[in-house]
Amino acid sequence: MTTTEHTRAVAERYFSTMNARDWSAFGTLLTDDVRYELPQTGEQITGRDRYLSFNQDYPGDWRLEVTRLLADDANASASLLFTVGDQQMVALVFLELRDGLVARVTDFWPEPYDAPAGREHLTQQGVSERDRFTRS
Amino acid sequence: MTTTEHTRAVAERYFSTMNARDWSAFGTLLTDDVRYELPQTGEQITGRDRYLSFNQDYPGDWRLEVTRLLADDANASASLLFTVGDQQMVALVFLELRDGLVARVTDFWPEPYDAPAGREHLTQQGVSERDRFTRS
Repeated sequence: MTTTEHTRAVAERYFSTMNARDWSAFGTLLTDDVRYELPQTGEQITGRDRYLSFNQDYPGDWRLEVTRLLADDANASASLLFTVGDQQMVALVFLELRDGLVARVTDFWPEPYDAPAGREHLTQQGVSERDRFTRS
Repeated sequence: MTTTEHTRAVAERYFSTMNARDWSAFGTLLTDDVRYELPQTGEQITGRDRYLSFNQDYPGDWRLEVTRLLADDANASASLLFTVGDQQMVALVFLELRDGLVARVTDFWPEPYDAPAGREHLTQQGVSERDRFTRS
């Protein structure tokens, strides 16, 4: 297995164990000092135990589907479609590996918004099913 | 050059010509029927001419820096730091290539928001410089 294949396999397992809430398997993929960053709030969480608590405590009966996954030697990026009840949202995640384990996670949660006026002559409505947010 | 190296090179040139507003060079990287999707508004733009118009007309004296770039055979993903005056924002972009040209672009624009209460025992403030939004 090449390093890129290993990185991809770790990323796939990271998301599959998260979706299964198999926190002990999920934890084995993380470095002791894993750092989780949420740039939109400016928050970080440092350390495996805290990051596991954050995930275990996270509210809502969510499930996730990986809709894109790219990997190179030490980095992976993914888009996810999260479903909570009848709501769908998209997350974008970057993973950085060190010695084959996830050492840094960066999460982005974009939200739907109204299209600005003035470009209707260029645009139509309609995007790929995999990126379809629930719009209120 | 492998296909992955070609995809990476096209992605790098896509962003460098965009940043330089070199729209004729930018246009040579796109398929005739390129599709641009903005899942947060539900908009799509189809065709090279319309997509070029959209970019040429886009307001603001922005500049961009590529902060992450991953590529495989036919896909690339990137995070960008956009600067407009004293404002900084992050964009996440996925490119899909066909016959070596960009055939689909999906853009996400997350926005800053306040951290929810109740997890202060797990979090600290502070994220990587490359993902630092201007917070109002």
